[in-house]
Amino acid sequence: MSIKISDKQQVLDKIIDQYDYFLFDCDGVLWLGDHLLPSVSETLEYLKSKDKTVIFVTNNSTKSRGDYLKKFQKMGIEGITKSEIFGSAYATAIYVDKILKLPKDKLVWVLGEEGIETELKEVGYSTIGGLDPELTQDGVNFNPNNPLLDNLNPNVGAVVCGLTFQINYLKLSLTMQYLIHNDKKLPFIATNIDSTFPMKGKLLVGAGSIIETVAYASGRQPDAICGKPNQSMMNAIKAQLPGLAENPKRGLMIGDRLNTDMKFGRNGGLDTMLVLTGIETEDNVKSLPEEEAPTFYIDKLGDIYEFTH
Amino acid sequence: MSIKISDKQQVLDKIIDQYDYFLFDCDGVLWLGDHLLPSVSETLEYLKSKDKTVIFVTNNSTKSRGDYLKKFQKMGIEGITKSEIFGSAYATAIYVDKILKLPKDKLVWVLGEEGIETELKEVGYSTIGGLDPELTQDGVNFNPNNPLLDNLNPNVGAVVCGLTFQINYLKLSLTMQYLIHNDKKLPFIATNIDSTFPMKGKLLVGAGSIIETVAYASGRQPDAICGKPNQSMMNAIKAQLPGLAENPKRGLMIGDRLNTDMKFGRNGGLDTMLVLTGIETEDNVKSLPEEEAPTFYIDKLGDIYEFTH
Repeated sequence: MSIKISDKQQVLDKIIDQYDYFLFDCDGVLWLGDHLLPSVSETLEYLKSKDKTVIFVTNNSTKSRGDYLKKFQKMGIEGITKSEIFGSAYATAIYVDKILKLPKDKLVWVLGEEGIETELKEVGYSTIGGLDPELTQDGVNFNPNNPLLDNLNPNVGAVVCGLTFQINYLKLSLTMQYLIHNDKKLPFIATNIDSTFPMKGKLLVGAGSIIETVAYASGRQPDAICGKPNQSMMNAIKAQLPGLAENPKRGLMIGDRLNTDMKFGRNGGLDTMLVLTGIETEDNVKSLPEEEAPTFYIDKLGDIYEFTH
Repeated sequence: MSIKISDKQQVLDKIIDQYDYFLFDCDGVLWLGDHLLPSVSETLEYLKSKDKTVIFVTNNSTKSRGDYLKKFQKMGIEGITKSEIFGSAYATAIYVDKILKLPKDKLVWVLGEEGIETELKEVGYSTIGGLDPELTQDGVNFNPNNPLLDNLNPNVGAVVCGLTFQINYLKLSLTMQYLIHNDKKLPFIATNIDSTFPMKGKLLVGAGSIIETVAYASGRQPDAICGKPNQSMMNAIKAQLPGLAENPKRGLMIGDRLNTDMKFGRNGGLDTMLVLTGIETEDNVKSLPEEEAPTFYIDKLGDIYEFTH
């Protein structure tokens, strides 16, 4: 049964005293789209003043860690560093480099945006596809004689798929061609498989839903999924925080989604806290079986500050 | 074990003498994209000269029956009438009207193209979505503040999804909004679920793959699938041909796909013939278990004419 955090004493006894490492999902926890949630900055400053380590974990692959730093600044959240940010685009680049060990002279075909392109470039890969304007020169119209369809690049060594708002039939069909090319041998890597993407109070089409198109069309499923709840991102975080790796129970994963954030924390051995500012409701939480129930839930992240001040 | 049709006597004894009703898939059987396959016109004329009934059955919902008539004419295939053509867009319109019995004052939201719009209009419905230029005014770029996202039309009574080349994130997300709207109550109808779409010798993204996106995003599966291999299209054909309904074994379904065309014919009680001008190979056919093997296979449809002349 999840415990609701609803007063000062609970915050102090159950949260502040118990955890040293606070992992946060971003969308739905810190902000909703471009709207910062109440008392979020103050909560982060309060935790840092108590010498807590904060880490931001996001499945949104459209942004690189650098883009996220700018977003924190734009939101008025100060003092965040790149090393505190783990995005699915970054986790994907780490996967391609360290696990897949793709040679650096191989190209990566990207169905996705700048976040993926930037993170792959930072570890030394060149990408094709992605936001290349050549792929959108006909806009939403499809030219079946587009020469790109007949000229797959033989140096492509992996296919990375994630969220893109700039989608068209050519990009989907080209991604499919690389996936079926050469007896379906090119590794197929998903940044994450969230079905929906929260934006401005609505749920829009998520990375996982776009990936379903090319998966179904090619008759394949991704060989690897890099974002939450997959543990490759958690392993990267633990590699950076030996204290968390040694004692995961000193870590609290805070998020708004049961099937990604809470699962991610739980599978990593951390305790978990669900916020109700995202897609889950209090009724949902209360009806969960014990093995899926988060350790805690709270109306909003900012309550940690508001209850104690 | 499928019998290969490879000489004149086989055509006469096994095909011409045995069947009165010839159902044809179009793409991959009559033509490949804009390229008419050899001796197709002659074969159709030969069958008609023998008083055979020919019916064309296609899952391509981008075209209406009227569009298909024009395509036959453009291809130089003469004498085809609208009543000989059954497309998944037409089958979908029949389904919405006769099975779903959607009131005519309700609107149909369309993820798809002119074929669906036209067939729905012909049975008396108004559509929204589809090829409405308002949905593509930002091209492949997505504006999260697009007012359409906040103004779902309350008169929409069903959501029809099929193939569209003119795809963008706004159309996918709007379709998803209608699917999750009102506790997911709006009927979700797929024209067909082919994973791939053959075009110019390549397999591109098919209707089923596009529908996977909005299905996964909304957490729903289509309530109805109207195209092959679903029998609603077969039932519509049999309603028009009482002789076939009475004795389905006098009918032969000819197609290039095992999991749609051959299944469609077999489930309707017809015999089946696979042509090898589409996506299947002779090795595939030979390795099939008895219950999936077509009655016959032939290198190309035109062999029916070429062997006999």
